[in-house]
Amino acid sequence: MEVGRGRSSDTDNGSGNDTADTSAAGAPSPDALLPTLSERDLKILRYVGREWGQVLEGPEAWRSALPVDPNLGGYPDAVRPKRFGRFVPLTGLPAVEAEEEAEAPPSPLGRVGHHVRRVLLGPPLAGTAIAAERMRKLVALPVLSADALSSVAYGPEAMLAVLVLGGAAGLRYSLPIAAVIAFMMLAVGVSYRQTIRAYPHGGGSYIVASDNLGRVPGVIAAAGLMIDYIMTVAVSIASGVEAITSALPTLAPSAVVIGVAVIVVLLVGNLRGVRQAGAAFAAPTYAFIIAVFTLVAVGLADAAGRGFQPIPTPRLPVTEGVTLLLVLRAFTSGSTAMTGIEAISNAVPAFRPTEWRNARTTLTWMVTVLIILFGGTVALVHLDGVVPHGNETVLSQLARRTFGPGVMYGYVQAATAAILLLAANTAFNDFPRVLFLLARSGHAPRLFLRVGDRLAFSNGILALALAAIAIFAGFAGNTQSLIPLYAVGVFLAFTLSQAGMVVHWLRHRDQAHWRKSLAFNATGGLLSAIVFVTAGITKFTEGAWVAVLVIGLLVLLALRIRRHYDLCTQALALRPHVIELPRQPAPGSGPQVRPTAMPRMAADTETEELEEVESEERPEEVNHLVIVPIARLDLAGMRALAYAASLGQPLLALHLSPTEAEAERFRGYWATWGDHLPLEVVVSPHRAIVAPLVHYIETLHHQRPDLTLTVILPEIVVRHWWQRVLHNQTAPRLRRALRPLPKIVITTIPFHLPR
Amino acid sequence: MEVGRGRSSDTDNGSGNDTADTSAAGAPSPDALLPTLSERDLKILRYVGREWGQVLEGPEAWRSALPVDPNLGGYPDAVRPKRFGRFVPLTGLPAVEAEEEAEAPPSPLGRVGHHVRRVLLGPPLAGTAIAAERMRKLVALPVLSADALSSVAYGPEAMLAVLVLGGAAGLRYSLPIAAVIAFMMLAVGVSYRQTIRAYPHGGGSYIVASDNLGRVPGVIAAAGLMIDYIMTVAVSIASGVEAITSALPTLAPSAVVIGVAVIVVLLVGNLRGVRQAGAAFAAPTYAFIIAVFTLVAVGLADAAGRGFQPIPTPRLPVTEGVTLLLVLRAFTSGSTAMTGIEAISNAVPAFRPTEWRNARTTLTWMVTVLIILFGGTVALVHLDGVVPHGNETVLSQLARRTFGPGVMYGYVQAATAAILLLAANTAFNDFPRVLFLLARSGHAPRLFLRVGDRLAFSNGILALALAAIAIFAGFAGNTQSLIPLYAVGVFLAFTLSQAGMVVHWLRHRDQAHWRKSLAFNATGGLLSAIVFVTAGITKFTEGAWVAVLVIGLLVLLALRIRRHYDLCTQALALRPHVIELPRQPAPGSGPQVRPTAMPRMAADTETEELEEVESEERPEEVNHLVIVPIARLDLAGMRALAYAASLGQPLLALHLSPTEAEAERFRGYWATWGDHLPLEVVVSPHRAIVAPLVHYIETLHHQRPDLTLTVILPEIVVRHWWQRVLHNQTAPRLRRALRPLPKIVITTIPFHLPR
Repeated sequence: MEVGRGRSSDTDNGSGNDTADTSAAGAPSPDALLPTLSERDLKILRYVGREWGQVLEGPEAWRSALPVDPNLGGYPDAVRPKRFGRFVPLTGLPAVEAEEEAEAPPSPLGRVGHHVRRVLLGPPLAGTAIAAERMRKLVALPVLSADALSSVAYGPEAMLAVLVLGGAAGLRYSLPIAAVIAFMMLAVGVSYRQTIRAYPHGGGSYIVASDNLGRVPGVIAAAGLMIDYIMTVAVSIASGVEAITSALPTLAPSAVVIGVAVIVVLLVGNLRGVRQAGAAFAAPTYAFIIAVFTLVAVGLADAAGRGFQPIPTPRLPVTEGVTLLLVLRAFTSGSTAMTGIEAISNAVPAFRPTEWRNARTTLTWMVTVLIILFGGTVALVHLDGVVPHGNETVLSQLARRTFGPGVMYGYVQAATAAILLLAANTAFNDFPRVLFLLARSGHAPRLFLRVGDRLAFSNGILALALAAIAIFAGFAGNTQSLIPLYAVGVFLAFTLSQAGMVVHWLRHRDQAHWRKSLAFNATGGLLSAIVFVTAGITKFTEGAWVAVLVIGLLVLLALRIRRHYDLCTQALALRPHVIELPRQPAPGSGPQVRPTAMPRMAADTETEELEEVESEERPEEVNHLVIVPIARLDLAGMRALAYAASLGQPLLALHLSPTEAEAERFRGYWATWGDHLPLEVVVSPHRAIVAPLVHYIETLHHQRPDLTLTVILPEIVVRHWWQRVLHNQTAPRLRRALRPLPKIVITTIPFHLPR
Repeated sequence: MEVGRGRSSDTDNGSGNDTADTSAAGAPSPDALLPTLSERDLKILRYVGREWGQVLEGPEAWRSALPVDPNLGGYPDAVRPKRFGRFVPLTGLPAVEAEEEAEAPPSPLGRVGHHVRRVLLGPPLAGTAIAAERMRKLVALPVLSADALSSVAYGPEAMLAVLVLGGAAGLRYSLPIAAVIAFMMLAVGVSYRQTIRAYPHGGGSYIVASDNLGRVPGVIAAAGLMIDYIMTVAVSIASGVEAITSALPTLAPSAVVIGVAVIVVLLVGNLRGVRQAGAAFAAPTYAFIIAVFTLVAVGLADAAGRGFQPIPTPRLPVTEGVTLLLVLRAFTSGSTAMTGIEAISNAVPAFRPTEWRNARTTLTWMVTVLIILFGGTVALVHLDGVVPHGNETVLSQLARRTFGPGVMYGYVQAATAAILLLAANTAFNDFPRVLFLLARSGHAPRLFLRVGDRLAFSNGILALALAAIAIFAGFAGNTQSLIPLYAVGVFLAFTLSQAGMVVHWLRHRDQAHWRKSLAFNATGGLLSAIVFVTAGITKFTEGAWVAVLVIGLLVLLALRIRRHYDLCTQALALRPHVIELPRQPAPGSGPQVRPTAMPRMAADTETEELEEVESEERPEEVNHLVIVPIARLDLAGMRALAYAASLGQPLLALHLSPTEAEAERFRGYWATWGDHLPLEVVVSPHRAIVAPLVHYIETLHHQRPDLTLTVILPEIVVRHWWQRVLHNQTAPRLRRALRPLPKIVITTIPFHLPR
């Protein structure tokens, strides 16, 4: 049953203000996901209801037949059963905030898992507990820029690691490339300032792209973003572990294990819902900013002491010639330093009012800091003649050279590791939200809509952790191997987002400064596109193909899923019942077949095909035949027969017999019992039990397709899971075999064994 | 539902002629497993039926209400649906022998597995295809003695491998120990001759022990036998692979892989049901007998040429002193050469008439051949001064010495490998039969009663293969490490079987020669017991503890399973309904409470406690309340409502809402529809869907425990398995959560999505 809170039944295509309001930080409000019926839906509903009214006794008859008061509050002394206690707020009593388990599983294994979950994750929270905490700029800056600023830890190194292949001649290009990247940062930053103004409710790439470019570009942007977030986790953790192993080389062999462990810790923390700890999250970013500022300042002071004369690099082996390709590869590697720059534009509603103004200011601060840190680091590397090598990060080398192996060095490394961890954590907030948005527009499984007991998107968090672990472990936690996969996704999303903004401004030419904004966004988009294409081509064989392939598959999958959901929505839509609708009649082609009743309904829906697939939509259309497969005349069988007979509908008992002799024997027992109900014995010489029964029932259906066949199955319910192997699972197997057949209802009568 | 063909509902304790008839070779007749009601059962049934008669309309009313002719033969032109085609033999037509799949699984993965199974195993066979082929003595000898005779391939070697630890001094004991073992063979053989006479329908250890000693000793014997058969497979395969690697040493590193592959081949072959190929099975045994006879004859002739002067052994390191313990260990190891000696007594009905006479003659032949082969081999080892070592089997060394590395040598090795394979195959026939007998008396899961499409006990065969692979691979396919586990199980079963025979003769003192038979059985039993105890003690630390532990666990498990089944039988037994039964009234203590109706029934059952646990055993006792949890007013929900309303029973629709606002909204929709049926909206602020619904239903039940609550769940059925992840599995989850609760019936209304 689809009791779940799915998306609304109207076929929205994920565009418009429908999606904008949920990009705010935190989980969506609990009933936002429940369907709201449109005027047309309501009309159909009213029509269908009138059809029912013609056949049902009045509602009062049903109400008075009810043997219970459905409002349990009417029984104040009612027994309160324990297992799912305190879940139903009885009317008249205050609604209870449950501190208890949401769903206590019945099996002992399940119970163990449940307890582990409670210990790790804490008790469930009520939906109303979602905090709409707003951030000051000084808090927002560190929280939202951890992803971007932490890139300084690996971006410059990634660039240098390519250039060093060209030897000293290659390294000479580091300053010009860094200047280009710094300019890109500026351009993209300015570009996102426009986005913030245009999307004050939060303008993630998916929203902007699907809003302005359409469904498919939106899905492509989302796929790019998802790859981006997975890579953010993998690269940040890899780089963070390298910061640690640079300081403590003895840990190097366990790097992969440490990294996976850290991802698991992040997973558990996020399943608990760690969003609240604002201040704690600010510390690492400020610590890192201070660390790199100090490093750059002290380093530059040293260099100033020697007249900014670069220390010559050690003699370097030249692996490749310094070609344009090498330079471009270095450029795309280095541009990973820009990842995370979009974070603020996603989270505008999390700022204090006036939100967009504060967000823009914070973005400006962030880009400034980013350019300083990035530029300073590259300059210092150049001046100090540091060369990237496998065992120690460039940042660690700089710190060791500048401060010596003391407290200050340790501080730099610790701050680096901390901000990288925080950056990875950011992805744990963002990735599930993208999946949520995709799921809401029907492009991802609905299970990503579900908010866990702790108000976190547990399924999305889990998906991210698994993907990140797979990527991280698959590449043995090596940052340099991961980098080529990184740039593609990010810059694809950037490009689509900026292109979307260009279309946005073209559509909103009434707004102030639209020309200037359009120019900025066009510049940012163009530059991003160049990086995307360059990265895709130059890094294709190094790993970018993986990212391209995965993005392609994700997009295909998303479209396929959407098609399935559309089909479902269509199949599940209510349709007025008796009327035949004219199918797009050719104008003037004879008399139009107008339904006799409710002509306005037909006019409303005439553009759609409404066919009758199965027809039991009203009570009087259900013609019953109850079938009771019975193996033995034992208590379980008798109870099934009693239940079936009590329904007062035509009934047929069915016995399966391997031989004619056994059939006779059973008929004898039936006669002994009194032959009260019609019995049919099916003789099948085969060992199978399910198949002959299903075949018989199927044949019955084909003979009388108008009947609704209710198959009543007694099912023995054991007390302990291990006892299940002791009983033939005939009932579940029959249920599975009958389920695909039309007009067959399956009723299970549990028979509980005593303990 | 327990549609399965379980054991009869009377609580037999696995004794008497009830079990004897199925030990015949082959699967049991199809309806042998279906319950036959006792006189008492019939009486209760008649009584219960009369109760029903008081409340039901006459059978004619029900029959005439039936909208179909249940006998499908009445519709000769009926559509014959394809999927489970040809399974129901329509009356009037000849019963169809199905060549089609017994159960075509719906998922594509299942379908692939299904096709693989058909290719590997062949089409299903009808139950009537069981061949009752009888064997001539000259065919029975090789088929039934493969297990015993093949032991010559590892028994002597196992003995020598222990003695060689004592150096040349140790080896001197080989001839005396062999003599003792040969005497044991004779004694046990004579002992089994008595069993054959007493159990002409087949007297396996389990049957004899449970028949005469009781349930628990029977189960212990069965556990011993099961270990025996597992070890037979493991040791035979290990030894067979050693025969091959002795000839082709390059294969030695792949020994474990080869062995596992051979077990898998045996598994597949037996799942196909290879029993029929009698002649093919005779060849390896005769080939082996000829090979070893020739070897011994030629070897003795050589030795005669040098006046039976033993060739001195090479200088041997002495690892242990020649103690009594060493000799005893060598003895128990060597006595594994006796394993399989019981095979003929199990299979008496497979002989041509007069069965027991032919079986006895064949047993005598077999023991004679066994003693000659065993004695000859040991003697030749002594004369040729062969010493066991790890790389080449003793038999291979003898053959190489006697024939040189030519065709004859290859023949001996091939014949050895072949008979060992055949011996392992024997276990694949015997192990599932023991499990079948255990299952039939309720000591093993019923799934071991099930005969597969190919009329083989597939589950038992699978269990044996898995256990054998585990043991074989766990001990790295090393025969010498496996031997200590072997003797314990075999001789435990021998001992219990012979002890059972002793009791048998004491009970049947009217039979001819009972004293002589008793004496033979007592001797055999005593000797077996000595070997069992010796093996258990001297080999305990070498591995026998594993066997002892597993036997103990199996026995405990079997008794536990039996207790569960007994409980089920008791819980499922029909009980007369209204009467209160007097519980063992103290004689003369006031007026006896006699039930008003059917006093004879009460008198019949007064020794049992018949309590009313749940009381809906007759139609008029079922008080309905139908509950329809509804998430949305879509087609699936409407269809559920329509079905529910059509039942004409009191009905309550249930909606779960996360907020009061959503609740209002839904009530509004309900009113728009027309408010035809009573609706209750449960407001729960929690994210869980299942728990609040279950809690509400549970509370309803506690308020009105007399009501039977039918919960009607629409369930979306997808076309492809992968689509399942796209839908909330709320219906299955609700079903699981509701199943443990009493008096709740769960009805599923499948909603089929279009393709």
